[in-house]
Amino acid sequence: MSSGRRGGRNRIAPSRSPNRSAAYRQLQHPFAAQQVFSDDEIADIHHTALRVLHELGIKFLLPEARQLLAKAGALVDENTQMVRIGSDLVAEALSTAPRAWRMRAPNPDRDQDVNAQALLFYPGAGCPNTIDRARGRVPGSLQSYQETLKLQQSFDVIHCLGPSAEPQDIPPHLRHYAMTQNQMVLADKPMFVYARGQAQTQESMDMIKLGLNLSDDEFAHDVWCLTVINTNSPRQVDMPMAQGIIDFARAGQLSIITPFCLAGAMAPVTVAGALVLQHAEALAAITLAQMVRSGAPVMYGGFASNVDMKSGSPAFGTPEHIRFSIGSGQLARHIGLPWRSAVGAASNTPDMQAGNETSMSLWAALMGNANLIVHSAGWLEGGLSFGYEKFINDVEALQTIAELCAPCPADAGALAWEALQEVQPGGHFFAAGHTMARYADAFYEPLVADLRNFETWADDGAQTSAQRATRIWQGILADFHPPKASGDIAERLAPFVEARTKAGGAPPAS
Amino acid sequence: MSSGRRGGRNRIAPSRSPNRSAAYRQLQHPFAAQQVFSDDEIADIHHTALRVLHELGIKFLLPEARQLLAKAGALVDENTQMVRIGSDLVAEALSTAPRAWRMRAPNPDRDQDVNAQALLFYPGAGCPNTIDRARGRVPGSLQSYQETLKLQQSFDVIHCLGPSAEPQDIPPHLRHYAMTQNQMVLADKPMFVYARGQAQTQESMDMIKLGLNLSDDEFAHDVWCLTVINTNSPRQVDMPMAQGIIDFARAGQLSIITPFCLAGAMAPVTVAGALVLQHAEALAAITLAQMVRSGAPVMYGGFASNVDMKSGSPAFGTPEHIRFSIGSGQLARHIGLPWRSAVGAASNTPDMQAGNETSMSLWAALMGNANLIVHSAGWLEGGLSFGYEKFINDVEALQTIAELCAPCPADAGALAWEALQEVQPGGHFFAAGHTMARYADAFYEPLVADLRNFETWADDGAQTSAQRATRIWQGILADFHPPKASGDIAERLAPFVEARTKAGGAPPAS
Repeated sequence: MSSGRRGGRNRIAPSRSPNRSAAYRQLQHPFAAQQVFSDDEIADIHHTALRVLHELGIKFLLPEARQLLAKAGALVDENTQMVRIGSDLVAEALSTAPRAWRMRAPNPDRDQDVNAQALLFYPGAGCPNTIDRARGRVPGSLQSYQETLKLQQSFDVIHCLGPSAEPQDIPPHLRHYAMTQNQMVLADKPMFVYARGQAQTQESMDMIKLGLNLSDDEFAHDVWCLTVINTNSPRQVDMPMAQGIIDFARAGQLSIITPFCLAGAMAPVTVAGALVLQHAEALAAITLAQMVRSGAPVMYGGFASNVDMKSGSPAFGTPEHIRFSIGSGQLARHIGLPWRSAVGAASNTPDMQAGNETSMSLWAALMGNANLIVHSAGWLEGGLSFGYEKFINDVEALQTIAELCAPCPADAGALAWEALQEVQPGGHFFAAGHTMARYADAFYEPLVADLRNFETWADDGAQTSAQRATRIWQGILADFHPPKASGDIAERLAPFVEARTKAGGAPPAS
Repeated sequence: MSSGRRGGRNRIAPSRSPNRSAAYRQLQHPFAAQQVFSDDEIADIHHTALRVLHELGIKFLLPEARQLLAKAGALVDENTQMVRIGSDLVAEALSTAPRAWRMRAPNPDRDQDVNAQALLFYPGAGCPNTIDRARGRVPGSLQSYQETLKLQQSFDVIHCLGPSAEPQDIPPHLRHYAMTQNQMVLADKPMFVYARGQAQTQESMDMIKLGLNLSDDEFAHDVWCLTVINTNSPRQVDMPMAQGIIDFARAGQLSIITPFCLAGAMAPVTVAGALVLQHAEALAAITLAQMVRSGAPVMYGGFASNVDMKSGSPAFGTPEHIRFSIGSGQLARHIGLPWRSAVGAASNTPDMQAGNETSMSLWAALMGNANLIVHSAGWLEGGLSFGYEKFINDVEALQTIAELCAPCPADAGALAWEALQEVQPGGHFFAAGHTMARYADAFYEPLVADLRNFETWADDGAQTSAQRATRIWQGILADFHPPKASGDIAERLAPFVEARTKAGGAPPAS
């Protein structure tokens, strides 16, 4: 849990290690980035993507986007809505896109710095359904949206809020009120706003200012919310997405540009080819953002995997997915921008397949030094469901990685010479002074893993980790306390929401 | 499966990609080794280990081991059985230990080169029990020993044979006959021999010569079998283990020196401290091997993890386990020897915990560039059970990694310019010529992962990956065909085994 994670047990000694902290914040990548392509090959992919933009072009459905790009020097064909963007324009955009910023949170302790070494975990998001062992698979609702926010808030290792469940029982023209309000009332981490048209975006940002008591300047000065911009591969940006790029750039808020390039379906069947397309689309969207407002915060995004040739479904955790993540990281570093990757699982249930898919794609994102790892907890069915039990099991994996971000001492005390002297052959270290001084928090304490032997475990019901996770999320929800500022924020937001609701809300754009 | 893995489906086109191969052999690490300690810190750990050997000493219970080390210059106290080994002796041993060799197999196609970049997967081994969904948890038997050999043989990604199940229904004095015989009759990969006393070792090696028609010289010239030497941490080597080091070194066969340092129990509670102990014990055993025979093949081994402070059980896939693996790799490279790591899972069943533990420790071994990754498929309960369904699910992970060892092309064809030109915005790549020419084997084809959507999967019984794995291993066993040479080998071995059995067999040493 967010605080006192180690405090809930009867331990003999209090925490004594200065090097460990259960506050998994401001994590920095513990491992060096890996490569799947040589530097020359990455330069080739970048160059080919520039050719795609310059020679083939990309279709922007939104007239304002075409106008902005034309004004900046791109070649626009209004009949075909195709925009051809020159390499110099892309280079100009890349020179103004920021390399680092702070993601502000309602609670300043929850602020997260984004930079080349940052490692942020983002929950499984965008799921139309939820699934758990108590209630089965049901469409997302306000209740599950609230519950999943509470789960996100309860683990420090989840660094930003995301729409794990879609509150489909709220009408679309009022949904953004509920989504924005609940993020501030139930949690205090960096926030998410869907780019579903200018009206909703504007009202959501107004609510953030109102809820957090921010002046227009204070809001504009920092990054208070993020959105995810998905291109429509191949080579197309639809109306709400282009509008989102424009609105977020104007407001100085973060657009995470994320083509979803499924190799063999909406992208070339080869890893290198799909990365060319991803890179071209991302560069186009980044260029638009910078033409709107020089210095607008944008994050390069890669979420490419392969289609399963048997079922036609997106596959995750595959060799191809791993290569896409590591290759995307190389491309992001080639252009110098922070970047997002994604974990994924196609499994329909929290089983070993889900574990393997999730771990493989998590490590791929780590090996690519992704700065924001989206869908890192709870995703099932390629995103069609958010799994409560999977979320708990995934958090165990994230906490394991987060622990690796702390220093691993090798000073005289850690080298343990005295203990090695003290304990003789045939002896053990349980009672050594060196152990006694450190054991209370020497090791990560599991969240859901059961380390008991087979007989004890079997006598206690032989529960799988998915079964044990049910009790854990139920306990978290039962014990949940909203952040201190919750009441004040709710009070400030209520009249706004009431008035806007009476006025008819704001329908999403499509 | 070992051959035709991609051939069993109704595919439209035959395999066309020259860059992929389902023969997962002679794998080389695809990723650069990572660090948890600085080079200076690794030098400190090495130096402290040398101090342990020189100032504190290590206990060898076997008189011959003490004599050999004394003769080489170590200081031996016969009363305490303690041996103090000087740094110069260790340095001399490290200068003669080989850096690379070929692991010979009964089938030369199965030979595996061991070198600094080699990546070999070894099955879960040493398990007293087996567990599967059809028959439950039962003590290992000849039947399960044979079945697990068949499973090992059936996947190319399992590179060496290991005793996954202990055939406890064969009396101990005859067990080595059955174990050695079955490895050659049911499989044709590099073999394992337990170091359970000189008589058993000698007879097992005699059987290998006989079964494979090898002269004494041919056998001695190459590495035909391996054993695992576990020290008794802290700082003790028991009789059969020291005897094993001596016998294998004399025969020119491979000893894998593997202290099992459980931090907080039989080793210091700190990662650095436990590594000091592991390193000291490994260096002592390596030194003994080189004093027996200069140039004897030895592999540095690390299998350290932490004890769970709540249950007292060994934990696996933890942050500490990951650090031990990566740190052990640094130490192995510091002394220049190939090394073995281990995957592990404490879970009692093939669930998400098992998946997370296994994946975390698998990636740790990869990040440590371990050359032999032991227990990489099938281990459950910290090694107390071999799980058939877990084996199948783990093989999926190993095959995923093995795929990453193949090149990832970024030539003109892979960059897919023509396909990007051909497919317009709003289109798809399914029917593009570029896709058609490649799709048949563009992607890894899952073994047990189910990519179907929720409804189809649910209608088909909503099986977990563990449930699906049952059908897979049962199918493999039902369809199994022994290697071609099997009959001849069995014929050559039968009289030997009959005669030795009549003569009373050879009891294991303890």
